[in-house]
Amino acid sequence: MTGVIDLRSDTVTRPSAGMLAAMTSAPLGDDVYGEDPTVNALEEQVAGLLGHEAGLFTVTGSLANILGVRALVPRGGEVLCEASAHIVRAELGSHAAASGVTTRTWSAPAGQIDLEQVRTLIAPDLGPYFVQTSAVSVENTHNFGGGSIQHGYDALADELNARGLPLHLDGARLWNAAVATGRTAASYASRAAAASVCLSKGLGAPVGSVLVGSAELIREARVWRKRLGAGWRQAGVLAAAGLYALEHNIERLAEDHANARVIALVLADAAPGSVKPDQVDTNIVVADLAGTGKSVAQVVEAARDSGVLVGGVGATQLRVVTHLDASAADCRTAAETLARIIAG
Amino acid sequence: MTGVIDLRSDTVTRPSAGMLAAMTSAPLGDDVYGEDPTVNALEEQVAGLLGHEAGLFTVTGSLANILGVRALVPRGGEVLCEASAHIVRAELGSHAAASGVTTRTWSAPAGQIDLEQVRTLIAPDLGPYFVQTSAVSVENTHNFGGGSIQHGYDALADELNARGLPLHLDGARLWNAAVATGRTAASYASRAAAASVCLSKGLGAPVGSVLVGSAELIREARVWRKRLGAGWRQAGVLAAAGLYALEHNIERLAEDHANARVIALVLADAAPGSVKPDQVDTNIVVADLAGTGKSVAQVVEAARDSGVLVGGVGATQLRVVTHLDASAADCRTAAETLARIIAG
Amino acid sequence: MTGVIDLRSDTVTRPSAGMLAAMTSAPLGDDVYGEDPTVNALEEQVAGLLGHEAGLFTVTGSLANILGVRALVPRGGEVLCEASAHIVRAELGSHAAASGVTTRTWSAPAGQIDLEQVRTLIAPDLGPYFVQTSAVSVENTHNFGGGSIQHGYDALADELNARGLPLHLDGARLWNAAVATGRTAASYASRAAAASVCLSKGLGAPVGSVLVGSAELIREARVWRKRLGAGWRQAGVLAAAGLYALEHNIERLAEDHANARVIALVLADAAPGSVKPDQVDTNIVVADLAGTGKSVAQVVEAARDSGVLVGGVGATQLRVVTHLDASAADCRTAAETLARIIAG
Amino acid sequence: MTGVIDLRSDTVTRPSAGMLAAMTSAPLGDDVYGEDPTVNALEEQVAGLLGHEAGLFTVTGSLANILGVRALVPRGGEVLCEASAHIVRAELGSHAAASGVTTRTWSAPAGQIDLEQVRTLIAPDLGPYFVQTSAVSVENTHNFGGGSIQHGYDALADELNARGLPLHLDGARLWNAAVATGRTAASYASRAAAASVCLSKGLGAPVGSVLVGSAELIREARVWRKRLGAGWRQAGVLAAAGLYALEHNIERLAEDHANARVIALVLADAAPGSVKPDQVDTNIVVADLAGTGKSVAQVVEAARDSGVLVGGVGATQLRVVTHLDASAADCRTAAETLARIIAG
Repeated sequence: MTGVIDLRSDTVTRPSAGMLAAMTSAPLGDDVYGEDPTVNALEEQVAGLLGHEAGLFTVTGSLANILGVRALVPRGGEVLCEASAHIVRAELGSHAAASGVTTRTWSAPAGQIDLEQVRTLIAPDLGPYFVQTSAVSVENTHNFGGGSIQHGYDALADELNARGLPLHLDGARLWNAAVATGRTAASYASRAAAASVCLSKGLGAPVGSVLVGSAELIREARVWRKRLGAGWRQAGVLAAAGLYALEHNIERLAEDHANARVIALVLADAAPGSVKPDQVDTNIVVADLAGTGKSVAQVVEAARDSGVLVGGVGATQLRVVTHLDASAADCRTAAETLARIIAG
Repeated sequence: MTGVIDLRSDTVTRPSAGMLAAMTSAPLGDDVYGEDPTVNALEEQVAGLLGHEAGLFTVTGSLANILGVRALVPRGGEVLCEASAHIVRAELGSHAAASGVTTRTWSAPAGQIDLEQVRTLIAPDLGPYFVQTSAVSVENTHNFGGGSIQHGYDALADELNARGLPLHLDGARLWNAAVATGRTAASYASRAAAASVCLSKGLGAPVGSVLVGSAELIREARVWRKRLGAGWRQAGVLAAAGLYALEHNIERLAEDHANARVIALVLADAAPGSVKPDQVDTNIVVADLAGTGKSVAQVVEAARDSGVLVGGVGATQLRVVTHLDASAADCRTAAETLARIIAG
Repeated sequence: MTGVIDLRSDTVTRPSAGMLAAMTSAPLGDDVYGEDPTVNALEEQVAGLLGHEAGLFTVTGSLANILGVRALVPRGGEVLCEASAHIVRAELGSHAAASGVTTRTWSAPAGQIDLEQVRTLIAPDLGPYFVQTSAVSVENTHNFGGGSIQHGYDALADELNARGLPLHLDGARLWNAAVATGRTAASYASRAAAASVCLSKGLGAPVGSVLVGSAELIREARVWRKRLGAGWRQAGVLAAAGLYALEHNIERLAEDHANARVIALVLADAAPGSVKPDQVDTNIVVADLAGTGKSVAQVVEAARDSGVLVGGVGATQLRVVTHLDASAADCRTAAETLARIIAG
Repeated sequence: MTGVIDLRSDTVTRPSAGMLAAMTSAPLGDDVYGEDPTVNALEEQVAGLLGHEAGLFTVTGSLANILGVRALVPRGGEVLCEASAHIVRAELGSHAAASGVTTRTWSAPAGQIDLEQVRTLIAPDLGPYFVQTSAVSVENTHNFGGGSIQHGYDALADELNARGLPLHLDGARLWNAAVATGRTAASYASRAAAASVCLSKGLGAPVGSVLVGSAELIREARVWRKRLGAGWRQAGVLAAAGLYALEHNIERLAEDHANARVIALVLADAAPGSVKPDQVDTNIVVADLAGTGKSVAQVVEAARDSGVLVGGVGATQLRVVTHLDASAADCRTAAETLARIIAG
């Protein structure tokens, strides 16, 4: 698809030449036996970056979440989360289907933490007749919330800490939150008992996420990774891409955020009210087409015909995601294309 | 516990002499083979009362719900419900643990249906990457909502019908809703693809619930009842109690409702604002002790010392439940005892 | 079905007048709250009879097995058993479906323990790459093995004890084994970490089994009983039948065994080689019709027309089960009817 | 570990320079959206090689087996297999834990199919009271059986076909069976309703297996792959290694087989009776040290000190596995080292 600008998701990136070179020169071993030196290096490095004892390299962020939540919530226990969080919307019910974990949800604009609602939902231990809340899960940044940064993160962490309840962090795009706020990733992740981060979204590695937690949590997660059929062999070839990404592709996320802001400004200009540029926290722009007279399907199709790929979320919302394979010029071109179609 | 007035729940009733006589004279057979004539009669009668093809006699309402939801929602699929519904609060996560069904929830006063929230939560079929809503479950009356009748029931049923989505009805106390509104139980239950009703709460049978649905749904539920270890043998001895209860104990629920209203009035008088008597729809009174200077534990204990058993729900709420083993005089005595303690 | 002699199973018995009287006079309470005095008495008495700390009254023997095995074997762990044991043949895969427990099996005549095979199958802890054997389950007497007593029971218990592996006993018909051998039920059950016994087969109660084990095991089993939807309310009405059965119906199992022996002798006479009377250990007769020129279906149907109900197991085997609702005369009549049909 | 000869498993191989070059030049895309051209090419090619409609690239052979068995066996249904098959020994109970599939097993020397036992085990549909056999699974070649070729494969396939029962083929080392017998892989795999093959054992790719079956089976397996957290993104980088392996590394398995035969001859010479060289079908040598006076741990450790890595299976058995990273000279050196230790 030469010339196409693909802004459907930051998962579509392809490894760069430098990353490929790192992949082919990495020392390898059998990770099922814990003998792949590159995997071990990646797990150690990410654990360190996130302020945790140990890490586990997983094939997807979904798997890192499945293993992390499972470690915190017993079968028949409950995790609370926002109603549009990835773990309840985009992981095909695996927390229930594979782990027997049940969920209750709150709803808030941009997928934000609503501390008052969380407090009401938390179910204490009332004896063996009632479901008990075992953990709260937060996605930060929040994908379907438009790449939003969780403003109530520390307050929730404090609250849970006071109650002795563990926090689970779905940090698929935690790097974006860290870069956008100037905080370290550890300042977020170390507040959680288990956290996942992704190497294959904004960071540009082809495959892989890392779950971090205590050494014991990770030991158990490693067994369940194998039980779910995902204990891989010479995974160092992928871990090498992850290590490369950590070194080269974190700081540059600021460019993606700037590009997203530009897209938002162009769209807000073309369709006033469709998007609020100052609410575009990171690399995701969600534009509401409700007042434009155009349907999402119409715009997606017309954009595709003009060489710009974008997606829809919900009935009237267009989603545009910036990433390291889309330059500032690409993003401006895409924005102008979309503006022309919407206004046209 | 002679002389004790037990208003903790309507599950505490004991079979009457008439009911026991019915139990000992019932013809029996092996229900695992479908050969218990009394069980068969009960299943047929309840199915008829609720406007459904077939019924299945189960050991609890929880099991009837587990089997009913399971029949409507595939493994990895989703059922929506209110956040304090019995299926997510008081069934120990079995829908996730035994059926692999995932849940998202809305919150509303008195556990009511909030059609706007339901509409926002319903997840359409977006392809094999997202969880899809397979059913919506409603508890009517709503236990933790204070025995409340679902005012938006028909509107929700219409909405789901238009979308081709099945409704699940947790009708553990559907008889109360029917008696209180003057509607038939069928007018509610026939709107649902699967409905459960309980024989052992207000109706006074010692054990048992019935799940109703299409003949095919019930056939499959029967297999899963056995798979979960609950396919019983000469269950007719219990079904006979259920048949007796259906004949003798439905209409009299009006007395329980009147008694609950009296209790509410007495408590509202003693502690203004703690309860709104006109919001006591059926046989459950929930009084908020927040403004009284008394804790739930204090009141529960002092009442017990005075021969009145009641319970707490949440941090500041007292729950009082009327039933066929508590006479009007008992309920008045209990109300006055509680009033004295709260005001004391 | 007046005049019909039903020898399909010992589950078809109906409560006697004495048992019904016991049921209607029993004190009751809410067993979900642990407040049913009759249930508590039954659980205590059975635990005592079987040499265990605590008991749990369950709606079926299948459920008692599900809860017992689950307590001994973690999710993803393994229990070994004979290939025609009830837990792998007649419980609809619930150990896998509800508990995530995996099974490997040995095969032996009459469902016997084969210690050599068990030794070969037991998988030690080889680290987190391999399934580990967590328990061995034995059915005694063995239903599909023809009511056979497990001759290698003590040797297996010794072997497992030496290895630190728990034994699970499916004792649905343990009373038959005890009466036939003159041993106490405790002499068997106390060797197991968890054991189930049935009140509704030879003992004649309408519904119910009891799981026994340590106090801690039973506490956890009680929670899972509720999670699987089987925590019942005024179950004392059924527990009373169980208590009555324990008092009146154990010793008389010897009559059922004698009746089964008579049936075996009559059938062996009519069809030499079809059954070995000295291998009829208890109350189940399995006759192989292979050499008789008659099919199982033919014989079952012709017997039914003559007022005798029996069943088939496998392609060529007829199963006849004696019990307390079939007198010695009934059994002789049935045997002669079958002999006439087979020889005819 | 320079100079070390690692014969613990054929999973320890590392990608060659040619394979790495293929990996870095492969066109990539997002496989979750089905857009990775290299993954698509691999899936198509393997499906074609195995005589099936469609394929699915999975992170492990375990996952391919989990998805394949799951597609053939409903929750609560049963798959039969040999007692030392990979699916019941080395997949951590995932078929029970994640799919609710139950198992019964037969035992046979070298993990062979025993048609008589299979016939006895197959449970027909006896109505909703009994577990029904839904599939039979065969591992070919059989890992813990010593890399043995299944001699009864076609006879079993015929039998199952006649009964309308599907066959599942765990073909992790099917390429070895094909090369050793001169048959095509399709001649085996096309007899099965679902088959898995591995790219990361003898074939030398770093990560990955392929499940093949009908288009519909694969469509459903793709959804469950995502549900289990293993739907990967730019997996083409690994698929490229798989395509390279298919082109370059199948025929050369004959060398591994020849090397294994040499090892067996040397060991048989050093410790007569410990191994039967003519029973070494492919690339795995299992030597029984029972009569040698040496323990497995002793030999494994002494070999390690001499630069040769091998493993143990069971109490007295040494396992040696040849592969493309061990030359004929390496294998001869390793054999002589082991012989010296065993005889010493």
